[in-house]
Amino acid sequence: MDRSDTVKRRRRAFQRERELVKLLWKKGFACMRAPASGSKAKRTVYPDIVAIWKGKVFVFEVKTSERKRTIYVPKHQVDKLKEFATRAGGRAFIAVKIIGVNMSWRFIPIEKLLHTSSGNYKITEELLEQGLELSDLLREAGMVKDITSYW
Amino acid sequence: MDRSDTVKRRRRAFQRERELVKLLWKKGFACMRAPASGSKAKRTVYPDIVAIWKGKVFVFEVKTSERKRTIYVPKHQVDKLKEFATRAGGRAFIAVKIIGVNMSWRFIPIEKLLHTSSGNYKITEELLEQGLELSDLLREAGMVKDITSYW
Repeated sequence: MDRSDTVKRRRRAFQRERELVKLLWKKGFACMRAPASGSKAKRTVYPDIVAIWKGKVFVFEVKTSERKRTIYVPKHQVDKLKEFATRAGGRAFIAVKIIGVNMSWRFIPIEKLLHTSSGNYKITEELLEQGLELSDLLREAGMVKDITSYW
Repeated sequence: MDRSDTVKRRRRAFQRERELVKLLWKKGFACMRAPASGSKAKRTVYPDIVAIWKGKVFVFEVKTSERKRTIYVPKHQVDKLKEFATRAGGRAFIAVKIIGVNMSWRFIPIEKLLHTSSGNYKITEELLEQGLELSDLLREAGMVKDITSYW
């Protein structure tokens, strides 16, 4: 992959992050993106996105792919998310957007990630399909009532 | 003020933001700085810093000054902080660092800000002196026990 591909990939990832921030904001969350990718601070401690609603905290690392495939997540990114979520008292997810197929954002709780033989993590296509959707997150945050609460 | 002064001021403000993030992180908060000043997104909705501990949320706009003086805060910055804090279920502060005197960070709750005749806000020297210190924030977050709880 040459340099222009890398730049394109980064720009695309950045656009998707912004898209997710807008979506979460529209749904009612206070939501913030981390400083631009590549800064030293971010690599050490920041998740890509933090979303909060009335003290309920969700932190996300964002992954995009052109197609459905196994998605790999480096150990240091998962550790970073865990540390941040523990301090914040919140939950950590890998937010995945598959571009080019008609598939909405999926949110994989980091506890569900599968181990690779090299000590990193992965999300198989099956795990991706089982990921939470935005409506599940809203329910978990208490922003929408479960239908059973109307019974 | 010429352009190089503006650049210098921005760099100084940026360094102080990073300093405060480090300080809050060291005390146990999950803490994130907003994307770089000047981006459109930030001007609209982001506070300079978000700090969270076990669901307790604090949002900050950072102000620095070379000396003690009345500090002015534009209405749009206060509105932005309020909106974010309301969604997050947290508290909003102006974090002030006076450089060049031996004075620690002071945190002024936005409810305490004084109105200016032009519809903006200000922090007088007196109000600054009354601002919370870091230890007060930690107590409010429940990170340190009030001494009376040991009685």
